[in-house]
Amino acid sequence: MIELSREEDVYTLTMTAGENRWNTTFVREFAAALDEVEASTGAAALVTASASEKFFSNGLDLDWVAAPDAHPEAGDRGAFGAEFMVLMGRIITFPVPTVCAINGHAFGAGFMAALCHDVRIMRSDRGFVCANEMQLGMKIPDQELALFRHKLPRHVFFETVQLARRWTGPEALAAGIVSETGELDGLLASAQRRAAALAPLGANRELYGGQKETLFGENAVINGPHGPAYLLRTAGDH
Amino acid sequence: MIELSREEDVYTLTMTAGENRWNTTFVREFAAALDEVEASTGAAALVTASASEKFFSNGLDLDWVAAPDAHPEAGDRGAFGAEFMVLMGRIITFPVPTVCAINGHAFGAGFMAALCHDVRIMRSDRGFVCANEMQLGMKIPDQELALFRHKLPRHVFFETVQLARRWTGPEALAAGIVSETGELDGLLASAQRRAAALAPLGANRELYGGQKETLFGENAVINGPHGPAYLLRTAGDH
Amino acid sequence: MIELSREEDVYTLTMTAGENRWNTTFVREFAAALDEVEASTGAAALVTASASEKFFSNGLDLDWVAAPDAHPEAGDRGAFGAEFMVLMGRIITFPVPTVCAINGHAFGAGFMAALCHDVRIMRSDRGFVCANEMQLGMKIPDQELALFRHKLPRHVFFETVQLARRWTGPEALAAGIVSETGELDGLLASAQRRAAALAPLGANRELYGGQKETLFGENAVINGPHGPAYLLRTAGDH
Repeated sequence: MIELSREEDVYTLTMTAGENRWNTTFVREFAAALDEVEASTGAAALVTASASEKFFSNGLDLDWVAAPDAHPEAGDRGAFGAEFMVLMGRIITFPVPTVCAINGHAFGAGFMAALCHDVRIMRSDRGFVCANEMQLGMKIPDQELALFRHKLPRHVFFETVQLARRWTGPEALAAGIVSETGELDGLLASAQRRAAALAPLGANRELYGGQKETLFGENAVINGPHGPAYLLRTAGDH
Repeated sequence: MIELSREEDVYTLTMTAGENRWNTTFVREFAAALDEVEASTGAAALVTASASEKFFSNGLDLDWVAAPDAHPEAGDRGAFGAEFMVLMGRIITFPVPTVCAINGHAFGAGFMAALCHDVRIMRSDRGFVCANEMQLGMKIPDQELALFRHKLPRHVFFETVQLARRWTGPEALAAGIVSETGELDGLLASAQRRAAALAPLGANRELYGGQKETLFGENAVINGPHGPAYLLRTAGDH
Repeated sequence: MIELSREEDVYTLTMTAGENRWNTTFVREFAAALDEVEASTGAAALVTASASEKFFSNGLDLDWVAAPDAHPEAGDRGAFGAEFMVLMGRIITFPVPTVCAINGHAFGAGFMAALCHDVRIMRSDRGFVCANEMQLGMKIPDQELALFRHKLPRHVFFETVQLARRWTGPEALAAGIVSETGELDGLLASAQRRAAALAPLGANRELYGGQKETLFGENAVINGPHGPAYLLRTAGDH
């Protein structure tokens, strides 16, 4: 479901569950891989990628959400909401540089996960990033709104959350959602090169992660008393 | 002064007062048209357009402001400030998708009205959008600042409010002020097509409008205790 | 170190100290030039430029920071931090339009100074703007974070402060960090033309500076209780 490999200073976390839909088991395996990266010392950076050719991550595991008892391998349904948000709060303040290779569709929770990384590189010819809640008739949680608000220019934030716009790679690049696009062939290699270049910033984790806390943590208010990292992290409390 | 028509799910509100300058009568006719749209049920979207070939809306009715008694048809001068802001607060949180066809100049209050819509499509070859208060030696009200701040990227916000920049269609597109440009011929049709595509989002008005309240309502703080919708709406109270 | 000249309504402040590194003496000479501009009346605007062909301002005077006693001409080391921030707070709310001609590298404190101006024009073929603290292993002070956060679109803010990106002129233009680029030859003249066009806005200093106070002053909260001008200005108190 989640594989972690290392090549010099660069860890690569590969999601290998097809559409890579989020359920409690997926969250916990992802978190365990982060534990391993975080336990390392010295220069380091993380690349997050997908083994699929079509999907980065297609959102929630809706089959499981509809019938959790029919999918026990997907884990504790009741624990999911808060644990997912806490994981996002952990990624957005991760103490080493993080690079996301968006090789295909990133919808809903998958888009959130991508946006929590420091750098996004997206496939140019196919795939959309999209927060599709409005289209599905669902309210976007406050934590997710805070995340989008802090990461995107105002007009891009609005089109993303209110109009559920599907952004292609070139559109996402122009909008500032991703910082680079490329062909599928070579996308992972680009992400790994970028991660290798940023890895020295990860050597001082207290400094690198500490500044992200300042950017996204408690008191990083825009809309409400707290910023996205704090809201994501404390999602179980409110 | 204001005409409202309907074609399937798309309402078109056309301003037919030449330069479409804002006075109390204009505000109340605009509000009455919104009442009609809001009283409908099911999928719906609103297009706001101008019958003029040169002006979308050229700002306040300055003749009336200078000599209200000489223009009784323009309405109660004392009621204007708060009622105009309240109308803008209503548009920015309108519970169905709103598309604005900017066919010509949109200055001051006219630019505010355009910016309160969800989507803006602007004529490419002529016309400016501009908040010209600084050039006229007027302070921009807090409500208007909050509106611009929440809708525009930071550098665009600054050039707009502090330097009173006149943005052409192509410049407004690059800056994120509008999301599309086109020739005057076909501008209204483009806006109506866009509105038709977004109309299904308006079917659940509590959800669609409720999320805008979250984006722009009370506690949507950036500069002061409240966001633009709240400030616009309560302009009569402070 | 600092030269000030005037041509009709346009003051030009030229930094003539080579790399134009910041120490207490440099801060005080810069402030004295601002005193002279501020003592004038009527339409006015300020251009800030460098006499160097390679550097706009290369950041802190690190030789002096490392060994202040060996460089007594650089001034009181203990006074520097707060006085520098206060100067930045003064520029960001300066009551006449300010235009910065970035003719070469602007790093750290030099980038901050450029960003406090109303308009930036940057050399297109050489030179970087960069907040290089993360690369140097230094925490970015809260005042500086607030400045960057209020001036830049979200994704540009993040790449600037967290990833210490070196922006070329064309990249800075696309990102909204500068509003114009040009060849070194003619850069100063462009800045002066722009300043002359904006100078009338400076005639009413209470209005022009007062609105900047609203944009950047106390209560201009995003991340913490106060905005960048307030934080910069009161840097000595906390």
